[in-house]
Amino acid sequence: MFYIIGLGLSDEKDITVKGLQVVKACSRVYLEAYTSILLVPKENLEEFYGRPLIVADRDMVETESDEILRDADKEDVALLIVGDPFGATTHADILLRARSLKIPTRVIHNASIMNAIGACGLQLYNFGQSVSLVFFTDTWKPDSFYDRIKENVEIGMHTLVLLDIKVKEQSEENLARGRKIYEPPRYMSIPTAVSQLIEIESLRSEGVLSPETTLAISMSRVGSEQQRIVCGTLAELASLDNEVFGDPLHSLVIVGKRLHHLEVEFAEEWATDKANWRKVARESYAVALDEPST
Amino acid sequence: MFYIIGLGLSDEKDITVKGLQVVKACSRVYLEAYTSILLVPKENLEEFYGRPLIVADRDMVETESDEILRDADKEDVALLIVGDPFGATTHADILLRARSLKIPTRVIHNASIMNAIGACGLQLYNFGQSVSLVFFTDTWKPDSFYDRIKENVEIGMHTLVLLDIKVKEQSEENLARGRKIYEPPRYMSIPTAVSQLIEIESLRSEGVLSPETTLAISMSRVGSEQQRIVCGTLAELASLDNEVFGDPLHSLVIVGKRLHHLEVEFAEEWATDKANWRKVARESYAVALDEPST
Repeated sequence: MFYIIGLGLSDEKDITVKGLQVVKACSRVYLEAYTSILLVPKENLEEFYGRPLIVADRDMVETESDEILRDADKEDVALLIVGDPFGATTHADILLRARSLKIPTRVIHNASIMNAIGACGLQLYNFGQSVSLVFFTDTWKPDSFYDRIKENVEIGMHTLVLLDIKVKEQSEENLARGRKIYEPPRYMSIPTAVSQLIEIESLRSEGVLSPETTLAISMSRVGSEQQRIVCGTLAELASLDNEVFGDPLHSLVIVGKRLHHLEVEFAEEWATDKANWRKVARESYAVALDEPST
Repeated sequence: MFYIIGLGLSDEKDITVKGLQVVKACSRVYLEAYTSILLVPKENLEEFYGRPLIVADRDMVETESDEILRDADKEDVALLIVGDPFGATTHADILLRARSLKIPTRVIHNASIMNAIGACGLQLYNFGQSVSLVFFTDTWKPDSFYDRIKENVEIGMHTLVLLDIKVKEQSEENLARGRKIYEPPRYMSIPTAVSQLIEIESLRSEGVLSPETTLAISMSRVGSEQQRIVCGTLAELASLDNEVFGDPLHSLVIVGKRLHHLEVEFAEEWATDKANWRKVARESYAVALDEPST
């Protein structure tokens, strides 16, 4: 059997009891380590699971899937995925390959950022499509996310913005010279993300986002004891020091117009400026809220 | 501390290791039992967790939350939620109440139908807003879901349709007479759901859904060993016997136009008519697929 097992979001104890039982019983266990990361090092997982893990980088999962699947028709092999196996990335390729090799497969689900983002208090069923935001360079500023946010904004939906992760990337020079030297990992922070959003708005000028009147909610280290939520207008979030948001990973929600006063009140605790949070919700989102008592 | 803990989707072993540790250590543990159900009885949970659970029905969670929160500032109390605490329903009310009582809270996430639905192979980031479908009666056929599906269809997004669950409902007569006699639980099945969708399409006639050319994917008992996926056109799914889908819970995905050939091929294995699945994907969804070899 080939198992694909979600690890959840923060540490070694977020695996399910069912998942842990499988991990302990498999012949080989791979850890997918490029679409997301846990907030603890691999060694913590190995110690808690009581077994070694084989790191599977993008190359391995994409080009050596037959090695991962080797003998899985006769013994149990597992691939561990941070979050849920069908969260931000599906792992359909390797499951299709297993199917063509007549290897039975089983998925063990877990929390994903795609559902845990609900901890900000916004109803998940009012989220539209999600978008990914990649690190801009001087010459490459892909902006297709803007059209998708626009589609959500037009029907009042919230948007989950997944922020870029660069793990095991080579510099252009090292890539050109075929040197397997990797850059340190980079994780996009909220201020970078918000400034990129504002930059594209100012280039496209279609009025999808407004620094002063678009509300957003940032979530750092979702699901961990160090989880932090900060909310405000885009301009407010862009102006905060990165240390307010703390260590990675960061995610961002752009709040759509289908907003309920209970949601505004639930998130108000985390607003960088509570009075302005309520004011914008009332004036730009037409949420029925009491006037401030001050 | 007041903990709110997701149980995942199918059985007692879907709880996370972290969640189980908390459950074992709490003074009181409540089980929320009205927004969704696990596929095993409460007794299995109690045996595996090694402790009694207090069933919290809708009345209790909504009107007796102070009893649930009693002494949670001095000891640990947990509320267990099927799926994720912020999945199809947020539990913001009780968290807000805890906050006003100065009780610290902690959320332990798990898989929800909102992310596990990705096991059908469609990319989660191409899902739009979700909708709920309630049991129609002769006189009550709420159709606001239709407008929401329309919004998704117009921008090519998939729609997760959550099917009605009736747990601990009273008949109108028993309600009127104040008799606490409850009807047996009812879970909407795929054929009922699809026939309700088609009924509203025929009443509204806005061309949002087409029995012959709208593709859909049904998922039964997501995450369990008895998981079953069946896909086809709405007309095909409506024509199948309920036993094809098996026991509850059932969920339905209406496939949007932003469909990739890999997704079509991944789901083809579960198509009730493989040739027609490919034909509709090619002709009505403009997916580039090879002609059938037959």
